[in-house]
Amino acid sequence: ELWWSSDGAVVELRWSCDGAQVELSEMVDCFNEITMNSDCRVVMLSGAGKLFTAGIDLTDMASDLLSPKGDDAARISWNIRRKVVKYQEAFSVIERCPKPVVVAIHGACIGAGVDLISACDIRMCTQDAWFQVKEVDIGLAADVGTLQRLPKVIGSRSLVNELALTARKMFADEAKSSGLVSRVFADKEAMMAGALEMAGQIAARSPVAVQGTKINLIYSRDHSVTDGLDYMATWNMSMLQTQDVMKSAQAAMEKKSPKSIVFSKF
Amino acid sequence: ELWWSSDGAVVELRWSCDGAQVELSEMVDCFNEITMNSDCRVVMLSGAGKLFTAGIDLTDMASDLLSPKGDDAARISWNIRRKVVKYQEAFSVIERCPKPVVVAIHGACIGAGVDLISACDIRMCTQDAWFQVKEVDIGLAADVGTLQRLPKVIGSRSLVNELALTARKMFADEAKSSGLVSRVFADKEAMMAGALEMAGQIAARSPVAVQGTKINLIYSRDHSVTDGLDYMATWNMSMLQTQDVMKSAQAAMEKKSPKSIVFSKF
Amino acid sequence: ELWWSSDGAVVELRWSCDGAQVELSEMVDCFNEITMNSDCRVVMLSGAGKLFTAGIDLTDMASDLLSPKGDDAARISWNIRRKVVKYQEAFSVIERCPKPVVVAIHGACIGAGVDLISACDIRMCTQDAWFQVKEVDIGLAADVGTLQRLPKVIGSRSLVNELALTARKMFADEAKSSGLVSRVFADKEAMMAGALEMAGQIAARSPVAVQGTKINLIYSRDHSVTDGLDYMATWNMSMLQTQDVMKSAQAAMEKKSPKSIVFSKF
Amino acid sequence: ELWWSSDGAVVELRWSCDGAQVELSEMVDCFNEITMNSDCRVVMLSGAGKLFTAGIDLTDMASDLLSPKGDDAARISWNIRRKVVKYQEAFSVIERCPKPVVVAIHGACIGAGVDLISACDIRMCTQDAWFQVKEVDIGLAADVGTLQRLPKVIGSRSLVNELALTARKMFADEAKSSGLVSRVFADKEAMMAGALEMAGQIAARSPVAVQGTKINLIYSRDHSVTDGLDYMATWNMSMLQTQDVMKSAQAAMEKKSPKSIVFSKF
Amino acid sequence: ELWWSSDGAVVELRWSCDGAQVELSEMVDCFNEITMNSDCRVVMLSGAGKLFTAGIDLTDMASDLLSPKGDDAARISWNIRRKVVKYQEAFSVIERCPKPVVVAIHGACIGAGVDLISACDIRMCTQDAWFQVKEVDIGLAADVGTLQRLPKVIGSRSLVNELALTARKMFADEAKSSGLVSRVFADKEAMMAGALEMAGQIAARSPVAVQGTKINLIYSRDHSVTDGLDYMATWNMSMLQTQDVMKSAQAAMEKKSPKSIVFSKF
Amino acid sequence: ELWWSSDGAVVELRWSCDGAQVELSEMVDCFNEITMNSDCRVVMLSGAGKLFTAGIDLTDMASDLLSPKGDDAARISWNIRRKVVKYQEAFSVIERCPKPVVVAIHGACIGAGVDLISACDIRMCTQDAWFQVKEVDIGLAADVGTLQRLPKVIGSRSLVNELALTARKMFADEAKSSGLVSRVFADKEAMMAGALEMAGQIAARSPVAVQGTKINLIYSRDHSVTDGLDYMATWNMSMLQTQDVMKSAQAAMEKKSPKSIVFSKF
Repeated sequence: ELWWSSDGAVVELRWSCDGAQVELSEMVDCFNEITMNSDCRVVMLSGAGKLFTAGIDLTDMASDLLSPKGDDAARISWNIRRKVVKYQEAFSVIERCPKPVVVAIHGACIGAGVDLISACDIRMCTQDAWFQVKEVDIGLAADVGTLQRLPKVIGSRSLVNELALTARKMFADEAKSSGLVSRVFADKEAMMAGALEMAGQIAARSPVAVQGTKINLIYSRDHSVTDGLDYMATWNMSMLQTQDVMKSAQAAMEKKSPKSIVFSKF
Repeated sequence: ELWWSSDGAVVELRWSCDGAQVELSEMVDCFNEITMNSDCRVVMLSGAGKLFTAGIDLTDMASDLLSPKGDDAARISWNIRRKVVKYQEAFSVIERCPKPVVVAIHGACIGAGVDLISACDIRMCTQDAWFQVKEVDIGLAADVGTLQRLPKVIGSRSLVNELALTARKMFADEAKSSGLVSRVFADKEAMMAGALEMAGQIAARSPVAVQGTKINLIYSRDHSVTDGLDYMATWNMSMLQTQDVMKSAQAAMEKKSPKSIVFSKF
Repeated sequence: ELWWSSDGAVVELRWSCDGAQVELSEMVDCFNEITMNSDCRVVMLSGAGKLFTAGIDLTDMASDLLSPKGDDAARISWNIRRKVVKYQEAFSVIERCPKPVVVAIHGACIGAGVDLISACDIRMCTQDAWFQVKEVDIGLAADVGTLQRLPKVIGSRSLVNELALTARKMFADEAKSSGLVSRVFADKEAMMAGALEMAGQIAARSPVAVQGTKINLIYSRDHSVTDGLDYMATWNMSMLQTQDVMKSAQAAMEKKSPKSIVFSKF
Repeated sequence: ELWWSSDGAVVELRWSCDGAQVELSEMVDCFNEITMNSDCRVVMLSGAGKLFTAGIDLTDMASDLLSPKGDDAARISWNIRRKVVKYQEAFSVIERCPKPVVVAIHGACIGAGVDLISACDIRMCTQDAWFQVKEVDIGLAADVGTLQRLPKVIGSRSLVNELALTARKMFADEAKSSGLVSRVFADKEAMMAGALEMAGQIAARSPVAVQGTKINLIYSRDHSVTDGLDYMATWNMSMLQTQDVMKSAQAAMEKKSPKSIVFSKF
Repeated sequence: ELWWSSDGAVVELRWSCDGAQVELSEMVDCFNEITMNSDCRVVMLSGAGKLFTAGIDLTDMASDLLSPKGDDAARISWNIRRKVVKYQEAFSVIERCPKPVVVAIHGACIGAGVDLISACDIRMCTQDAWFQVKEVDIGLAADVGTLQRLPKVIGSRSLVNELALTARKMFADEAKSSGLVSRVFADKEAMMAGALEMAGQIAARSPVAVQGTKINLIYSRDHSVTDGLDYMATWNMSMLQTQDVMKSAQAAMEKKSPKSIVFSKF
Repeated sequence: ELWWSSDGAVVELRWSCDGAQVELSEMVDCFNEITMNSDCRVVMLSGAGKLFTAGIDLTDMASDLLSPKGDDAARISWNIRRKVVKYQEAFSVIERCPKPVVVAIHGACIGAGVDLISACDIRMCTQDAWFQVKEVDIGLAADVGTLQRLPKVIGSRSLVNELALTARKMFADEAKSSGLVSRVFADKEAMMAGALEMAGQIAARSPVAVQGTKINLIYSRDHSVTDGLDYMATWNMSMLQTQDVMKSAQAAMEKKSPKSIVFSKF
């Protein structure tokens, strides 16, 4: 279940999945709405329960993924594929949404939780957080984004492989040193304050600049540097015509905080 | 020379190359056999001698690579190319083999040794290990995989460039902090025990899950996230139909160890 | 302004941009000359002023980028695009130049400075250096290389996103642990000595090996491992025919320093 | 407006756009429904009016694309981009739908009509049909698929460029000789009969085979042969397990028509 | 069964498959041998029987592809995948062999025959030849190369789709006008003479030039023009150093036939 | 030698190379000037002499490409590579120039001539024109663009391979049916009139539309359809804001010729 609260330009999402199946279609609807809502400038995502995510409930999953219909193996495969694609879509919307998503993780982040946070833009966690690519433990190759995004998120391929092949837990310190998270906080309260502050800083910047930055960072990940530069030049031939540059430059020269600038909706 | 010993699902390979040229065709035969042998689930690779690898013996190499035949420069080039491709192939088989390869490094890992470990899946080393991309010291651009794989294995491009352009040694601590290895052990004995334990953990998981994980991790490295997700969904439309999911889920619910599950051959 | 001084095979460039606009066309001319000059084997780039770079001067930029001519929005866009492409080109020449570029950073490295160093091969800095992806602060998505190269330079995507979206400062320690720089020195004097020594080590190696290494490292970044290996084999079918291999091998066997070898011009 | 009539496994769509704006969202809904409807095996698309398509009505387009809102050029650009992406989506759904689409063209096929037919799988036309990439005549680079798909649809790049840059008409004979259409019929009646017959032939084949063929043909267009073969092998490892192979093989051995086989829903 | 006869530099292969299963491993061995044999400069492939190929024998195929072993659907899939990859490999060797392959087709070319000829370099046929992408008729998406190569071989996508989705026959005239073959001969005797003459012309040219041409044509198909040019320049930096250029230039200046030049082995 | 004459928006280039070496640096300068000259809207290129091009003069080439300097094979290779890249660049500028290039070919078009015309946008020829990929005859794999661009220009891969591997002549009719040229004229006079008329038609259209069309057509050739559509949408988010759309739409509604519209410089 997703809890949505909006404080001006920052949308706070809290997801609750203790013992309940992730509501994936809710994710899609939610991020589509955020994408279209020009008031929203940044998303802050955290867990509402005692853990960030308890992973996929095994009984629920069994009834969903493991008993697909179909008259033969090909038709069963086809129905499984549709489900997997739908699951993948639920996290890919985060990436397609041009508003940055800051995710704050406490406690356990397991299975689908790792798929989820790998698709977010900035990751932070509490000192007691731990991460587990759980899928191999239940006979699965993780198929909702972890194997595709995690190696491009952290800088040690040996570590990624170890996590995915042994399902061992990784704790906050290693998450920080490996680059999975860029900040660790003492506890959840401190983290929520920190996440909110960072979200506020992003929300105070020109939305033209912020969203163009996210879009081009993701584009560059999947293209050569030459292609990335070409796309960037094509992007900015219009985006540099924004009034935001002049507004921002003027505020900078007047030593004013970005927060004092009023940007038009984007 | 490659020593092969198989303890159930774990194949132990020890290579010995102190003063001797690497037997590359042996590598190809060995990994092709491992690929086809459905009893083997994971490979553990280590050095049999005092060092992990002493690099290419210069006299041997001279007679092999440096005196190619051919009536003109083009024909000499063509013969050199065939040799280089054969050398490359000797390490690429490791990557094409769907069984994960854990490599345990002690002492010196030089030249071809770095090409080799870059193609393995999980790297660990002893405290006294050191690594050297030696090729530039003998007038060569490393052409058997280091320049292609190392930058995708560790997270600092500045470091990769420094290592490849200056041939300086990197010791265990920097290998750990840079992500080249994910574990450092006090000595070889401890490392061999640790590697064996990790290999055992991987061997205890569903081979459908483990091998699908390796294949998709490597696929994702060389493709965009979108392409990676599509391939994953296509892969799993059949692989999720394995009994291993139900067996693993049941064991997990019954709090049994993965090692207690009997998976069919794969 | 670029200061050029050449000590044998090492070209030292110092750029001065305190309060002055970066002279981009100077960069292009300078690196084209270095590319063609077969005496030059390595470039060492540092800042001549109190800071490495003070970023783009806002008043100058305003008159350049922000008042493009054109009869309608499309024509203005077209003129902006040309300027952006020209700016991009000024740093891409560094990458296209086959001679390695070692960059030594002290004090502030802001905005265009980060674009610049991301295009260099080896980065080192002083303890008091700090880095800032400043563009979002003035309403811009960084478009001269930072968004394309930085994520492929350091190993934490969460950190890259944080830096680019919040414009926060990163100091020397985090620059080291994240892999942006591979060495940190106590002060500028120590750094300049260290950079010169490293440049000297690279300059002492075979230019055939060194430049082939740089070219293939950059090629591999933008291609799959399979493509990278194929290109490497095609590259080396001629480059292995250099006398430098025999000269280097002989020096190595005679325990002589690479610096004692006289390589032909390349 | 889209007219939908379903005769068993063949869905007939007729679009009517004489003087009216193309209802793009209708296209998306329609093809999503066809994708999910396992009774539908093939789509036959034709024009309901006197012409296949009269192009975009200029007055309507003006009010839609040419008067976008936004406080500055960047914001106007952003809103234009959203519209263009939505237009593109309306034709890309045809390609994403795994059921083959046979399009039958009579009379004029102009502007958006060419975007539309380029996204279909099999093209046929009447002797009096003509085609016109009209966009350049109204100051536009065609942005809804023609420039992307047409060069991959027909075999002469010189011709594609000529059509797109001069907006000249191409008649049925040249459409046939250039490969844009694979069949030309004397008149609409004959064409509709021919299209229906071809649609019937496709509908009579195994839907597992037919849809796998379409999906892999489109995948191959955008990937290397090596990647295409790998995807195909991954696809068919499940799809070859269909009963349809045995049913089809048996019918073939018994010299029965494919139409006599009853395939399960897919 | 493959018949091999070698007349100097031209290797003639005749395959016979009337009523017998294609011996795929024979193909791999044969082309590997041709690749390594420096006397062989060009391959001429034709059918030994009454038809070029009668397609896959359905009974044989059933026992091979349709009764794979495996304890669950995943394991069956894995075994099917191995077989498909092996089949693909049997035709991909033709493409990897640097010697050009001229294929001469008479009578029926069905199913695997189309996969085969799509992987050859130059196609010619008799007036009575016909082609059929048969797979969809027996419940299969063609998985041994037709769907990957045929669209890159001929210039009409509409025609490719029609052939693959309806399994209709295409006769010699359409094969010529669509570009599948570049020559049509009155009968088999005339074709064999024509093919032999063309093979002789290719065999008379510099093998450095001929094989470099094939390798770069195939490379370019799967890469961008920019990448293709870069690879070509890297290729030719050694290959232009061949004596063959001077020999060929001299013969051209002296108006001598290429056949009079003696090229070194390559 | 290049002759330049400009009639308003159409630049006519005539190249003369009977017996003289192609002046490649002239090409680069010329097209760079055309790119920057906003008066020029389209280029018409033809041959000034009795033939379109007589190919590379063998004696000149020998002194240029065949006697490169260098102390060893690697250094010779490096110098050859630089020359080849420079030759490639001379034709790639045509493609990078956003103004369309119509090329009119009469008589012989040999060797470098084919490289040249493959890089142009629209090709037409006289009835007596013939084309020859000559390189294989003098021991070369064509390395200045033919092998990279020709297969993407015409629709029969069998024909491309035949031309490149046998160096046979192709006459006007086959050039037309294969799609190499899109128009054939009776003689040079008629062709020049036809080319001028076509150039005039292109010059009369909105330069925003025309140049955006060329840029996106070339982008699409080297990218997937998905990437091409994304780039197009990014391109047009600014380019659709041109007044040219309204001017063109109005002229179209008033049934005026495009030639009557006055477009601003671009």
